[in-house]
Amino acid sequence: MQAEIITIGDEILIGQIVDTNSAWMSKELNTIGISVNRITSISDTKEAINSSLEEAMSRVDLVLMTGGLGPTNDDITKKTLSDYFACELIQDDGLYAKIEERLARYKIGMNAFNREQALVPDGARIITNNYGTAPCMWFTKDIKHVISMPGVPFEMKNIMEFEILPKLSEEFDCPHVLHQTIMVQGLGESVLAEMLQDWEANLPSVVKLAYLPSPGVVRLRMSLIGEDEAELKTIVEQQIEGLRVILGERIFAFNDEKIEQVIANLLLDKKKTLATAESCTGGNMAHLLTAMAGSSAYFEGSIVAYSNEVKATVLGVNSNSLEEFGAVSQEVVEQMASGVLKAIGTDYGIATSGIAGPDGGTDEKPVGTVWIAVTSKDKVVSEKFVFSKERGRNIRMASLAGFNMLRKMIIES
Amino acid sequence: MQAEIITIGDEILIGQIVDTNSAWMSKELNTIGISVNRITSISDTKEAINSSLEEAMSRVDLVLMTGGLGPTNDDITKKTLSDYFACELIQDDGLYAKIEERLARYKIGMNAFNREQALVPDGARIITNNYGTAPCMWFTKDIKHVISMPGVPFEMKNIMEFEILPKLSEEFDCPHVLHQTIMVQGLGESVLAEMLQDWEANLPSVVKLAYLPSPGVVRLRMSLIGEDEAELKTIVEQQIEGLRVILGERIFAFNDEKIEQVIANLLLDKKKTLATAESCTGGNMAHLLTAMAGSSAYFEGSIVAYSNEVKATVLGVNSNSLEEFGAVSQEVVEQMASGVLKAIGTDYGIATSGIAGPDGGTDEKPVGTVWIAVTSKDKVVSEKFVFSKERGRNIRMASLAGFNMLRKMIIES
Repeated sequence: MQAEIITIGDEILIGQIVDTNSAWMSKELNTIGISVNRITSISDTKEAINSSLEEAMSRVDLVLMTGGLGPTNDDITKKTLSDYFACELIQDDGLYAKIEERLARYKIGMNAFNREQALVPDGARIITNNYGTAPCMWFTKDIKHVISMPGVPFEMKNIMEFEILPKLSEEFDCPHVLHQTIMVQGLGESVLAEMLQDWEANLPSVVKLAYLPSPGVVRLRMSLIGEDEAELKTIVEQQIEGLRVILGERIFAFNDEKIEQVIANLLLDKKKTLATAESCTGGNMAHLLTAMAGSSAYFEGSIVAYSNEVKATVLGVNSNSLEEFGAVSQEVVEQMASGVLKAIGTDYGIATSGIAGPDGGTDEKPVGTVWIAVTSKDKVVSEKFVFSKERGRNIRMASLAGFNMLRKMIIES
Repeated sequence: MQAEIITIGDEILIGQIVDTNSAWMSKELNTIGISVNRITSISDTKEAINSSLEEAMSRVDLVLMTGGLGPTNDDITKKTLSDYFACELIQDDGLYAKIEERLARYKIGMNAFNREQALVPDGARIITNNYGTAPCMWFTKDIKHVISMPGVPFEMKNIMEFEILPKLSEEFDCPHVLHQTIMVQGLGESVLAEMLQDWEANLPSVVKLAYLPSPGVVRLRMSLIGEDEAELKTIVEQQIEGLRVILGERIFAFNDEKIEQVIANLLLDKKKTLATAESCTGGNMAHLLTAMAGSSAYFEGSIVAYSNEVKATVLGVNSNSLEEFGAVSQEVVEQMASGVLKAIGTDYGIATSGIAGPDGGTDEKPVGTVWIAVTSKDKVVSEKFVFSKERGRNIRMASLAGFNMLRKMIIES
């Protein structure tokens, strides 16, 4: 089964927000065998909503829409869809009571905007929105289904997860879609493509292959559509065996598992702990680790030593080393790594020191130069990288490279 | 002038990546007076490229496309567009030499994929891509313009900034578009809408207003299109005066300026320094601060004290307080704030301690409970918040709330 997504809101078209809803929805729809054919972002106007809906319904039987359901005057999706499907807007007493109660919890009274929100189209199924006051509407016309949800991501996600996805699974009989992603580190896209040339030429025709490069990582994605899930899985497993022979340990994970998750699993498995000492990554490694639920089981903390003084006083880096070699040097980064191990008392430590840019580069140490050290209680390994000219990219690549060095150290220990 | 954007790639439609290119492009196009009418994301198939291009060209005169230009077999945009515009693919010797030289820098030889990349459609203008090997192509047919760029964000951004935007500005005569965003903290969307009801009713018709809620912040956006830039600016300034009377210091910034940027400016202005002590925010405050270029001028570092041991040993939090009140308490967070001021020696400190979730909540301290303290050399202010059930949201809201508390402390000092 195929679907389309329409996201509504001028804020998307003027680039004020990034439409993250579509990606999330597409991924979830895929897991229940519904593929997304097209994503369209349009303006908050009646014309745009009507024409894009008309077009989408001419191509597919299922259209999911987000946005334009807020309580304010710029939001016109409900009225427009109600007219499109020839419905009347009537008050939903249950929804009215829910909005009233919800507002009461925050000690806010009902106003005209909220009363307006309790109106729903009489021809639509109204789906519960536990996290907000905007209604979710499911219109059906012959074999076509149009579902309109609020654009606030956590409201939409909750509605999708607990209401829409289960209902779609029940109502439609879908083929099986299998995506398998192989995460590869340390090779550029075209070099990787050349290494895989023979393997790729021999892929069964049911496998569609894509290369997805990003800073520091290339993701190889195989996509298969078929009726027999077990058969698709067998094909994928055989192909992964072939890849392992060619790429070895350059494969660090599967299915978009992040490198920090790989590390988390290794640390949990071995009951070891980690701390970081971050200069150029500025807390990003700690942030990536603590963004994962349960990270307190293996991550103790970080010293973000942005100034040289903090490197010296909190991490115990020798002032002479800072003066003689500079903060971006093997000597300093190794002292940072052993310093954090001592200060926080963990089994492993990662330290970074580099020039993130845009300023601060020299001929000898251009922007993008980063020294990284990983350490256990009895070993220190350090490496120098030269990443890019862009600050955000350098912070990201340095964080991933540090995690990858730790991954190798743990595996080899 | 109106444009449309088409982003190509199955990775978008299966939700593997979020299309961030469109938002960036839309924003940049807006600044030169080109408004984006629609954004469409499609699959890497000839049919999808042809049909979406046909439709977009029927609505607007300018179409910008990204994606599908990589060196691998799944990328078919160049061939498809070349056929669509009845061009032949011929070798571009300059591009060939550039690719060869670029690869040589990484000590990689030219392979069949790279040779293929040096082919370009003979009827298109070829635009320089300084950061990659995929060509950027500008097709013109009567009054219609179609520009195809690589999907890798930093390549696309570089091409847009230095090539496409200047050329578009030169070739087209556009009306003036003015967007003004007012950033408001501490009010929900419908409460804000009610406070602004009279003001909104009296807005001149040239002003289009939108409410953009996000965790902790509502952005109010006024959009105006006209010929006379000065006139539009005057109208906007008058409306902002009206808003200031109603909202006062709840307005913390304008035009999507981030709260960390507001703080950076305040600290730079007053020549003061900052350090953070982070438990539940796990380094996110440090990351947000150091993501900004030049942050070393006011940010010295952070102690990410994820475990209680680090709170005690590195920040000097009293073990009895940790036992008696728990880590998530006013006593502990205030000691963390003064501890980091002492350990790092800055003028200001921010400390956070809370239950980010999904686990760890109790009846008394549910998930989302966060204590935040800000401190200067002679004052400590702390506050308790209860945010949400979602981990990422709690980390984000706690970081922003901490920054906002510091903003108030600096302004009031």
